[in-house]
Amino acid sequence: MVVAKKFIIAKHFEGEPKPSDLKLVEEELPPIKDGEILFETEYLSVDPYMRPYAVNFPIGSDMCGCQIAKIIESKHDKFPVGKRIRGYYGWRTHTIFNPDKWNPPGLLKEKPGLLPDLGDLSPSLGLGVLGMTGDTAYFGFLEICQPKSGETLVVSGAAGAVGSHVGQIGKIKGLKVIGIAGSDEKCSWLVKELGFDHAINYKTEDVAAALKKVAPDGIDCYFDNVGGDISSTVIYQMNNMGRVSVCGSISSYNSDPENIPRSKILQPALIFKQIKMEGFLVPRWTDRLDESFTQNKKWIREGKIKYRETVTEGFENIFQAFTGMLKGENTGKAVVKV
Amino acid sequence: MVVAKKFIIAKHFEGEPKPSDLKLVEEELPPIKDGEILFETEYLSVDPYMRPYAVNFPIGSDMCGCQIAKIIESKHDKFPVGKRIRGYYGWRTHTIFNPDKWNPPGLLKEKPGLLPDLGDLSPSLGLGVLGMTGDTAYFGFLEICQPKSGETLVVSGAAGAVGSHVGQIGKIKGLKVIGIAGSDEKCSWLVKELGFDHAINYKTEDVAAALKKVAPDGIDCYFDNVGGDISSTVIYQMNNMGRVSVCGSISSYNSDPENIPRSKILQPALIFKQIKMEGFLVPRWTDRLDESFTQNKKWIREGKIKYRETVTEGFENIFQAFTGMLKGENTGKAVVKV
Repeated sequence: MVVAKKFIIAKHFEGEPKPSDLKLVEEELPPIKDGEILFETEYLSVDPYMRPYAVNFPIGSDMCGCQIAKIIESKHDKFPVGKRIRGYYGWRTHTIFNPDKWNPPGLLKEKPGLLPDLGDLSPSLGLGVLGMTGDTAYFGFLEICQPKSGETLVVSGAAGAVGSHVGQIGKIKGLKVIGIAGSDEKCSWLVKELGFDHAINYKTEDVAAALKKVAPDGIDCYFDNVGGDISSTVIYQMNNMGRVSVCGSISSYNSDPENIPRSKILQPALIFKQIKMEGFLVPRWTDRLDESFTQNKKWIREGKIKYRETVTEGFENIFQAFTGMLKGENTGKAVVKV
Repeated sequence: MVVAKKFIIAKHFEGEPKPSDLKLVEEELPPIKDGEILFETEYLSVDPYMRPYAVNFPIGSDMCGCQIAKIIESKHDKFPVGKRIRGYYGWRTHTIFNPDKWNPPGLLKEKPGLLPDLGDLSPSLGLGVLGMTGDTAYFGFLEICQPKSGETLVVSGAAGAVGSHVGQIGKIKGLKVIGIAGSDEKCSWLVKELGFDHAINYKTEDVAAALKKVAPDGIDCYFDNVGGDISSTVIYQMNNMGRVSVCGSISSYNSDPENIPRSKILQPALIFKQIKMEGFLVPRWTDRLDESFTQNKKWIREGKIKYRETVTEGFENIFQAFTGMLKGENTGKAVVKV
């Protein structure tokens, strides 16, 4: 008999998530039936979206999230023992699943399946540069910003999984790339290792003044991971016909929905510069994930996309990994190695 | 010799425009030269955009704006005496102009020219439903909102020239249309005369609650004339893949650019509902103005687009017409009859 450990939602998050909002419980798993597989989690993803999404699940639900797992028992021909799978099974160590009966929860439409072959790369990349965050960077930037060579791109949350990836795609596409991040170490990584043209530490620099200096001709594309005052500052320095891809709003995720933070209204900038601003969720491009996977893998092999992972060891430490990521303690993709 | 009266910019507007910001002066006009025409203003337009635009012109410039005028002297074959012209000549009663040497100021690219034949309709409509505001409503709504029959449209500033026009195009296109305006009289006009499905008086009603009641299935298109808190309220009630056409931000036009009002940030709504928000200036569609003119004229003839004008008599009263319009004292298009 296998005993799974899992975190369930004990109380919906209010403000900053507290350890008592989740509860670590054990679940005795039954023997698997025909068509089912049993798998053991290897890596769990922690991502900003989990903070606002988790409040939509009923109390007692498994905490939501994507994982990479290895199949340890199988009664399904196409999912043999030893293969790895990837899917949104939540924060748990062992899971039984019938691949033919998948009924996705409303918010997460990606059908779980076998992890594509990553060769000698870590399977954890299936949660990052070769998974959801890589897909997010690829489609969210290219489809919504429609970047053109010679333009100027600003990325906020630039040292995070998505931001660091977007900036590098910007460089591949011939743009001038400016990152905004929260420490000198992150900024140094962006410029020295990833090839960003400039990086601004928003905790120590005046972002408006720094942008005027490094982007004197204005900003054409803005990839927004944070929302709030930083974003308003960027948007008021954009050029005519600028495009804003709104990916995340991490600055407001801990806010009560009835008490969303306030910032300078954007309408005057949007009108007089004819700016387009569009939010997205990556499931919009579910039928094109082969494209982003193939291209991102090629760029990684060519050394054009570099990545970093912040790996927390131990299933029990996932809550700290999650809240640390929300505070910006990670560089690159935050994952938990079970 | 003709003496023109004109308003020049004496001081750039700060906050609410003050009478002393403009100065009424007289200008002796020279005899016209070959290729020139002299025309006398019949109608002047007052529009919200003038408030933010005027600060971009040097002190001493004529106050900016569009007008309809009658040619009273001509040394140009194609612009004979008696014909009417339309163009951005500013707040003045008489003007000399060489149609072949037009060099538009940066912000106003529409080449002035003869007013198209309006038949028995008032020439003043060339400033409204058959002019810039009609073009704004037509392209700004149809191109940016891409409305579909059966969807729900909300229009703010709904009793103004553009808003009242947009709502009626919405009805023509088969949408449910909700207007937001500033008096019961305006709301009554929208519903009883223009055929809006609902109207909300933002000065006396709780807009969020009223919208939930009249648009229980959410909002698909929002035509934003006002910016600020009303717009945030609307946008947080939008449906997945909603579209926002950002036409105006009249709630902030009297604000110091260094002190733009703050409102609830929009990023969370934009992301989780995948909303697209785009600002525009109508010169974007300058090469398609025949299309909007022809279609709007047809709709007027068919009785599908109704209009109202708030006409102020007397050139000297244009400042009051302008500031009254900024305060929402007009219904429909605000014009000045010289």
